[in-house]
Amino acid sequence: MKVVLLSGGGGGARFARGLDGVLAPGELTVIGNVGDDLEILGLHVSPDLDSLLYTLAGLIDLERGWGRAGETWNALESAGAWGGESWFRVGDLDIGLHLVRTQALRDGVPLSEVTEQLAGRAGVQSRILPATDDRLRTKVVTPAGTFPFQEWYVGRGHRDDVDAVEYDGAADATPAPGVLAALAAADAILIAPSNPYLSIGPIVAIQPIRQAIERRGVRCVAVSPLVGGAAVTGPAGRMLSRMAGGATPRHVTDCYVGLIDRLVIDESDFAAEAPVELVMAKTLMSDHEAERRLADVVLETSCA
Amino acid sequence: MKVVLLSGGGGGARFARGLDGVLAPGELTVIGNVGDDLEILGLHVSPDLDSLLYTLAGLIDLERGWGRAGETWNALESAGAWGGESWFRVGDLDIGLHLVRTQALRDGVPLSEVTEQLAGRAGVQSRILPATDDRLRTKVVTPAGTFPFQEWYVGRGHRDDVDAVEYDGAADATPAPGVLAALAAADAILIAPSNPYLSIGPIVAIQPIRQAIERRGVRCVAVSPLVGGAAVTGPAGRMLSRMAGGATPRHVTDCYVGLIDRLVIDESDFAAEAPVELVMAKTLMSDHEAERRLADVVLETSCA
Repeated sequence: MKVVLLSGGGGGARFARGLDGVLAPGELTVIGNVGDDLEILGLHVSPDLDSLLYTLAGLIDLERGWGRAGETWNALESAGAWGGESWFRVGDLDIGLHLVRTQALRDGVPLSEVTEQLAGRAGVQSRILPATDDRLRTKVVTPAGTFPFQEWYVGRGHRDDVDAVEYDGAADATPAPGVLAALAAADAILIAPSNPYLSIGPIVAIQPIRQAIERRGVRCVAVSPLVGGAAVTGPAGRMLSRMAGGATPRHVTDCYVGLIDRLVIDESDFAAEAPVELVMAKTLMSDHEAERRLADVVLETSCA
Repeated sequence: MKVVLLSGGGGGARFARGLDGVLAPGELTVIGNVGDDLEILGLHVSPDLDSLLYTLAGLIDLERGWGRAGETWNALESAGAWGGESWFRVGDLDIGLHLVRTQALRDGVPLSEVTEQLAGRAGVQSRILPATDDRLRTKVVTPAGTFPFQEWYVGRGHRDDVDAVEYDGAADATPAPGVLAALAAADAILIAPSNPYLSIGPIVAIQPIRQAIERRGVRCVAVSPLVGGAAVTGPAGRMLSRMAGGATPRHVTDCYVGLIDRLVIDESDFAAEAPVELVMAKTLMSDHEAERRLADVVLETSCA
């Protein structure tokens, strides 16, 4: 069985780990968001790809939910003391990866190839693909102005309300090698319980990817990021309320018109009328076992 | 009193600290070697400038003799695990500086300006200037082949004998802004107890610097790197024996023909006939006090 998952970091990465745990090696391809990528201290950082990599490799800091377990912060502190930017948190272990990736990118190696090499070194058996090797950057339109994603999210603590999200470069971006082939070969296409605007939006803003999903011959199932009318973490709930008019399963489906056949929602959410079939499940991934259980439910509903 | 010191890292940096301790703020300008510079993991590293900076700022690891006190090595270990080069030891605190400098250089800021900013941030009151902002790289010719400096020194543990030293880029290099002005304004020019071939050679291989010293109107005094016929650390003794025919004060003066008026040598060395006046002193800098005492002796002999 070949499964393709569209995902951001965080909860999406945990869902990816659930799938990785129940599928056979090589059956899962994760298409990761790159709209959050940034250059900091001259380093190319891909937060969502790294969350996927660290989570699937068992390197993620489980408490913090991002970055590496056992992390230290000496290089960043030093850089700050020497006058460098230190608002974006990159730890020493993390910087080791960023140095290797940045050097490879400067040498002309595409992001998809670097990502594959890193995943291979970490012993990850699922495939992690960036949505595109091209430059695609999410920008957030707020009453206080338009900001590059990380400046709004980390720099301003994502306090500003969001009126719209733009995907700079999406119009000219081509899918990374392997993305369309994976979608074409998939027995099921899944959308992780990630932020529809910030994590999935940048992926499906790439037209050939959107079209491939629109024209799918298999079922596409999304998992709602909401539990009880709010996102487990992050600003998805607030954004849905303001941009889609509410934070219910119905408003999630509005983000995925034409893209999904079913939406898996949490049992605590109200299964109102929706244009696609709603499937109830326990979507809160409180431990590895819960991740795998959710993966099983989603795989079942994507094939049944 | 205006003093210019030509220096490498290590013992040269300690001598610079002695001078910095006995001179008034702003009286000392150190012209540092950049022939050892390298790019590693995409970072521009200037080992001798950094040793000068760390030593004058009180940040140096006194035991190790290079790098920062309290250093950790997590980023390098991580980079190595992800497939990056890890043969050249850069610590996390050190990497913080390299990131800031590399980013500035990529933005077009000259090395001399970056160095000045870093020294200013660290509260260093003496001036540290790279010999040149241009690319100048020391290469070492050995029976086993010709190697970039750090590949021979660190990578091969400087085990190969040295037949000759080449300074790639020196012919086209221009002195960094401030270098010639400092030499012209100096009341005394000093050469640190650094390796004549590897630390001082790359500086005086820049022809305008060499000419400025050759045509000096003030005294130029060098401190011999030898104590008892051998270098305190590093390969200077072995190199002098093989390349100059011996490791005595006389062979040190052979490296500085036309450049110096006096050579300060250690009391343990044999003051044989030499083309310039030899001045006996305790040159072993076993502590801060010894550094300052040596600085006093050298300053006296440069003016008396």
